[in-house]
Amino acid sequence: MSVFTPVSAEQLAAWLKRYSLGALQGFAGIAEGVQNSNFFLDTAHGRYVLTIFEQLARYELPFYVNLMAHLARHGIPCPAPVAARDNDYLGELLGKPAVIVTRLGGRSAPHPSVAQCAALGAMLAEMHLAAQSYGGRQAHLRGPAWCRETAALVLPFLDEADAALLREELRYQGQHRPGELPRGVIHADLFRDNVLFDEDGAGTRVGGLLDFYFAGVDDLLFDLAVTANDWCAAPDGGLDPERTEALLAAYHATRPLTAGERAAWPAMLRAAALRFWLSRLQDIHLPRPGSMVLQRDPDEYRAILRARIADAHPPWLASPGRGR
Amino acid sequence: MSVFTPVSAEQLAAWLKRYSLGALQGFAGIAEGVQNSNFFLDTAHGRYVLTIFEQLARYELPFYVNLMAHLARHGIPCPAPVAARDNDYLGELLGKPAVIVTRLGGRSAPHPSVAQCAALGAMLAEMHLAAQSYGGRQAHLRGPAWCRETAALVLPFLDEADAALLREELRYQGQHRPGELPRGVIHADLFRDNVLFDEDGAGTRVGGLLDFYFAGVDDLLFDLAVTANDWCAAPDGGLDPERTEALLAAYHATRPLTAGERAAWPAMLRAAALRFWLSRLQDIHLPRPGSMVLQRDPDEYRAILRARIADAHPPWLASPGRGR
Repeated sequence: MSVFTPVSAEQLAAWLKRYSLGALQGFAGIAEGVQNSNFFLDTAHGRYVLTIFEQLARYELPFYVNLMAHLARHGIPCPAPVAARDNDYLGELLGKPAVIVTRLGGRSAPHPSVAQCAALGAMLAEMHLAAQSYGGRQAHLRGPAWCRETAALVLPFLDEADAALLREELRYQGQHRPGELPRGVIHADLFRDNVLFDEDGAGTRVGGLLDFYFAGVDDLLFDLAVTANDWCAAPDGGLDPERTEALLAAYHATRPLTAGERAAWPAMLRAAALRFWLSRLQDIHLPRPGSMVLQRDPDEYRAILRARIADAHPPWLASPGRGR
Repeated sequence: MSVFTPVSAEQLAAWLKRYSLGALQGFAGIAEGVQNSNFFLDTAHGRYVLTIFEQLARYELPFYVNLMAHLARHGIPCPAPVAARDNDYLGELLGKPAVIVTRLGGRSAPHPSVAQCAALGAMLAEMHLAAQSYGGRQAHLRGPAWCRETAALVLPFLDEADAALLREELRYQGQHRPGELPRGVIHADLFRDNVLFDEDGAGTRVGGLLDFYFAGVDDLLFDLAVTANDWCAAPDGGLDPERTEALLAAYHATRPLTAGERAAWPAMLRAAALRFWLSRLQDIHLPRPGSMVLQRDPDEYRAILRARIADAHPPWLASPGRGR
């Protein structure tokens, strides 16, 4: 159970008077959240999600909340924050920052099809383009600098083989990650459980992009690499060519990928694998006191990193000119 | 058929590249519009309505479009304008101003129930409160001054009895409409065809408030009077007490009505009836060249005006203290 802050119906109904959402009709805690307390919230006006932030401070939140509002008003299907009568998206409930967002329909696709990978690629490109007019600017907080700092913290906990792999990958990234790729606000965590497809999860219309709380400015290609590593993995840890090419081709049709991005693709896939191996190592070896972060298996991303290292020519755009 | 500006799929698909809405999947003209060209628009991201403005100029539109955006982000179910990649809600298509808004589900209720009148009353009060933080300010353009000017224009076309009724009502309004009532942005045209209820029109959840192109700052009570005259009319032209009291009680529970508003209620119902009698007379006797405005029967609102004049004690809040 991941609802940390208990709220009564009376507290919630009183707090809702700050909003123009009509009377409270029902609410229930959501078990999935791992960093916040989340509640489904039904009012006379519709269905919403209430988030009470357990870890992020109020001053950290406007970048994320305003980004979601920006993307939603541009037609990107993401949770749209609801403004209170004082015009602010961010409120305070039981002494913690809180926000109400629209509740999106649909289901995630644990085993995405080629068509779903294509739909997601097109949506990711649309999101990158829509975010270009967003005024907020914040670095992606889990970029190369974070990787170096976190590696230093977790290295003492690793056995010799893992330590060697980590040191070697940091060295490789320092030498091979180019500095001149197209940049912008990225989602940075677009795993399968953060995407909803309409209806029963079998459709190909992307009905929701969720959880923008890792978003920040970085190489746009990094977003594609994170996404490919999760969405297009084959059983052997390699990238499934058909799904990867569908993801990239649909993205490319909306935001054309550059020659520089093509050249950077193998290194970027490794960078994306490294980032999640590191955060999982950190969660296991250096858990934050009082935190209830779900501990995911770091070995999964060590395997993905090794597979990316082994594949010097990963799938790219499926065109005659791809040069493989 | 009310689609005046024909658009091809090719023109629309090319124009849509200014937005982050994904590929065009289908579109169809909407027959109901009478002042604009409206199209249903399906894209990879969802369902929308495209409006091409045939009468309003671009400089007149930001007040209305930004109002809808403001209300939508506060949780009032109204069409939400979609921003283009340049961040602007207003675009230009075939030389005319154009906007894309979200398409709301639901149906209108031609024969509203008591419960639907209550739901609408609560929603109208929420809308009035949410609009208080809207920065745009524009007078309601069909207020008392417009009534006097329009009366002068249509009087030459009226027979003696109608002319006498009109002159007498203008005199009455000049003497009896108070100047100190709570004011704010009102919808000003909340007829039954501008409200959607969820599902099949039989539900009581208001799923949409439509057509804000008459909105402006006026007495909030005027909005209630327009609404009551249309939603709560009995077959004899009088106000049905049960529906009127439900509308007002639900409104009152969200924004308490004042003693001044109670005193002004009979005159305000007459003012609302007068405004629609006048616009219908104007549409018939002084049609704008090239306009295809639907001509509605002025006699319907003459009858409503007469019924309101005859009823010095119209239904008000159903409470022991209502003083009837």
